[in-house]
Amino acid sequence: MKFCTSCGSTVALTIPEGDDRERFVCTSCESIHYVNPRVIVGCLPVHEDKVLLCKRAIEPRLGYWTLPAGFMENGETTPQGAARETWEEARARVTDLELYRIFDVPYISQVYMFYRCRVEDGRYGVGPESLETGLYTEQEIPWDEIAFPVVKQTLQSYFEDVKTGHYPVQVSAVEYRRRS
Amino acid sequence: MKFCTSCGSTVALTIPEGDDRERFVCTSCESIHYVNPRVIVGCLPVHEDKVLLCKRAIEPRLGYWTLPAGFMENGETTPQGAARETWEEARARVTDLELYRIFDVPYISQVYMFYRCRVEDGRYGVGPESLETGLYTEQEIPWDEIAFPVVKQTLQSYFEDVKTGHYPVQVSAVEYRRRS
Repeated sequence: MKFCTSCGSTVALTIPEGDDRERFVCTSCESIHYVNPRVIVGCLPVHEDKVLLCKRAIEPRLGYWTLPAGFMENGETTPQGAARETWEEARARVTDLELYRIFDVPYISQVYMFYRCRVEDGRYGVGPESLETGLYTEQEIPWDEIAFPVVKQTLQSYFEDVKTGHYPVQVSAVEYRRRS
Repeated sequence: MKFCTSCGSTVALTIPEGDDRERFVCTSCESIHYVNPRVIVGCLPVHEDKVLLCKRAIEPRLGYWTLPAGFMENGETTPQGAARETWEEARARVTDLELYRIFDVPYISQVYMFYRCRVEDGRYGVGPESLETGLYTEQEIPWDEIAFPVVKQTLQSYFEDVKTGHYPVQVSAVEYRRRS
């Protein structure tokens, strides 16, 4: 951030009075510009013994498989956002959304929220951000081609939990690690 | 938003190519400025049969009672943020944080996340954003002076769940309503 969104003057990183950390503060109108973490909402869409995956048509991780997910938008709830992303990426309508996994990723200031849900009538298609989509059993999933660690963990948890029929909500933090 | 944070030129609300909603786009450098919901993290700090409440020293709802909570900061996890807010507002160290209630508040683009936790050694104080703080039993809570509906709902859920000893994670949406 270089310029103030209110008046267009330059901003400087300083600690405002009464605060304890640096913020972008306008050198002219003194507006304080807070920068906060962003929420990524997604679904784990299930149909019978299969889950719906999308092959990414966009960077990062183009060509790798993921669950439908994306940045939460203003004016929506977290399940609404998760369902919207699933429509956009996999042209599937989802029902019975239940919060399932939350991942804090502090080194990039993101919070992921995945909802377990059903694929209405088992129908899906291919949205503009996907190269292809498909329903996969545990054995069929391309485990070595999953786009992001949070997606792999969510899928692994799910197939563990299927065995017991209990799907507890879990929160975990993802630490930074360089991809090997 | 009136000015671009990258170059200081004016921005205009337009739908970028490939998008389906209006964004603030710079009229000069064409940077797209996304605006996303913010996360409020908080605690439901418990000691024996009491919960820790704070009387607000700041607007909005100055003088009303709340649970310690505030905007999540970049670089922290949701439980770290909830614990930080509890220290800032009530000078209490908390342990055993368990996600408890999530509230979507789409009309102000906020997501609340409350963690149930223990107050270390039952010790607390008064932070700069509080007029006073205290541990209250269900009967002692000033129910008519609670600052926000999400706080009242969280407290009500808790004392219901205490009866069974089960504390399921719940997600709910808060619809807009004018205060009576």
